[in-house]
Amino acid sequence: MVAFTPSDPAFADRVRLSFGQQRVMTTLGASLVAVAPGEVVVALPFSERLTQHNGFLHAGIVTTIVDSACGYAALTLMPSGQDVLTVEYAVKFLNPARGERFRATGRVVKSGRTLTFCAGEVVAWDAAGRERVVITMTATMMAMPPRPAVAE
Amino acid sequence: MVAFTPSDPAFADRVRLSFGQQRVMTTLGASLVAVAPGEVVVALPFSERLTQHNGFLHAGIVTTIVDSACGYAALTLMPSGQDVLTVEYAVKFLNPARGERFRATGRVVKSGRTLTFCAGEVVAWDAAGRERVVITMTATMMAMPPRPAVAE
Amino acid sequence: MVAFTPSDPAFADRVRLSFGQQRVMTTLGASLVAVAPGEVVVALPFSERLTQHNGFLHAGIVTTIVDSACGYAALTLMPSGQDVLTVEYAVKFLNPARGERFRATGRVVKSGRTLTFCAGEVVAWDAAGRERVVITMTATMMAMPPRPAVAE
Amino acid sequence: MVAFTPSDPAFADRVRLSFGQQRVMTTLGASLVAVAPGEVVVALPFSERLTQHNGFLHAGIVTTIVDSACGYAALTLMPSGQDVLTVEYAVKFLNPARGERFRATGRVVKSGRTLTFCAGEVVAWDAAGRERVVITMTATMMAMPPRPAVAE
Repeated sequence: MVAFTPSDPAFADRVRLSFGQQRVMTTLGASLVAVAPGEVVVALPFSERLTQHNGFLHAGIVTTIVDSACGYAALTLMPSGQDVLTVEYAVKFLNPARGERFRATGRVVKSGRTLTFCAGEVVAWDAAGRERVVITMTATMMAMPPRPAVAE
Repeated sequence: MVAFTPSDPAFADRVRLSFGQQRVMTTLGASLVAVAPGEVVVALPFSERLTQHNGFLHAGIVTTIVDSACGYAALTLMPSGQDVLTVEYAVKFLNPARGERFRATGRVVKSGRTLTFCAGEVVAWDAAGRERVVITMTATMMAMPPRPAVAE
Repeated sequence: MVAFTPSDPAFADRVRLSFGQQRVMTTLGASLVAVAPGEVVVALPFSERLTQHNGFLHAGIVTTIVDSACGYAALTLMPSGQDVLTVEYAVKFLNPARGERFRATGRVVKSGRTLTFCAGEVVAWDAAGRERVVITMTATMMAMPPRPAVAE
Repeated sequence: MVAFTPSDPAFADRVRLSFGQQRVMTTLGASLVAVAPGEVVVALPFSERLTQHNGFLHAGIVTTIVDSACGYAALTLMPSGQDVLTVEYAVKFLNPARGERFRATGRVVKSGRTLTFCAGEVVAWDAAGRERVVITMTATMMAMPPRPAVAE
């Protein structure tokens, strides 16, 4: 594990503010549970509203929370005023997204001036407390100047 | 383009039935608009409930609809009684998911007995009717015997 | 298909010069057969020196030629003086790399100031002239200022 | 880290035999340096014959050795008589492949009856002994019945 030093001391507030603006997180029922330099954790309880045809969480939904976890992990290390954009990700589905609760962790693997490489995973817990890795993600994130509001 | 001949003449009904069981599609507001041998199209109108921090659709949401489009494209060519599972996907974000309506197309690139390779894309239209590719996906899908119901 | 207009009229010479500096291409026996705006083609004859344990070309070797094809496709659209670097790629193996000769084509899907998205494929021909797609690649390329020579 | 128990006690001999049949490894100068259950290591010294236009190892060459490391890591856990095939991989280029010697490690992340998920990386050492991760790979491998020899 690499130890990272954020250039912006307010990195955690910045992540919390931006996460709070992701309205899809409220729709899914996801919450931000940890923000550390280069690492962010997002939690999601199971919901029948988010299932595919076998009754498990849809692949895209677990992808959604780990994409945000990876993106915000990258953002913790970016200078103040920068925004983060997903360039691409590759996701492997190790096990069906079956469980009562889910936790997505995103970590920075290499932080660059323009691009940041991240690795993430989603873990599921069933009713008996058994833990299982559901998906892994490797992602490329990009630092961007902040976008102007639509009205400007 | 390759022309495919489905082994199951009821392929379209099977896809419609399974899509109807994906409760997340109702939650997102997505609908199945076309089912052909080796190709499936899913439509999604913009909704503020599905946005990231800049007001665009979240990357994971557009991934969700194109994953289903690719998976069902693979399913059209599988024998009756088979189910489809996503093994992995790689997604590139060409443009922000900005627009009034979105359409995900999934196509089979190579259909095998166990694995099927698919390619997909999500296109966005803005208020002026301008079209733009938002993401591309390449995915590996796997044929599976159907899962027993939970009660069995 | 998108039509691209290169900003550097000498784009083809620049690609040929750089390809000629890739000593691995000589080692593999690969040659540059076409350079157009946003599209580059590399040819490779079969060689037993490049095989894996079943006697087919190794996956990494066909990846090598399509990575160069994609990278140079991106370079055709970059301003003079820029160099190109592979950020990441995702490769799917549709068929074993069996054949007498191979052709890798790289095409630009979206050209940006910093990042360029490309798609590529490798096609094989057997002794009977039958054609088959071996692999597909989707890649992210990055424009870079040229690196100084080692001696500087 | 997960501990794996191979079903075939002769797993290491089987990997060594197959690696010895990959003629491309001799051409590149790569050697098999470690075989453990679920983990394989391949070494490659720098060679000017394998370089891209900046004098570093070509991306495809470092991909070649880590693909073999991942594939053989998967093979260590497969039953006797099975062969291994790469389904797909996603590779991220963290740093240029600059250095005097390179070591590719492939590890099994999840081993299934048909599919095995692996993660790999290539590390480079420069003349001063400094270590740096060059690329990471996540790969899907497939178990296959052995192919008949060409003469049969």
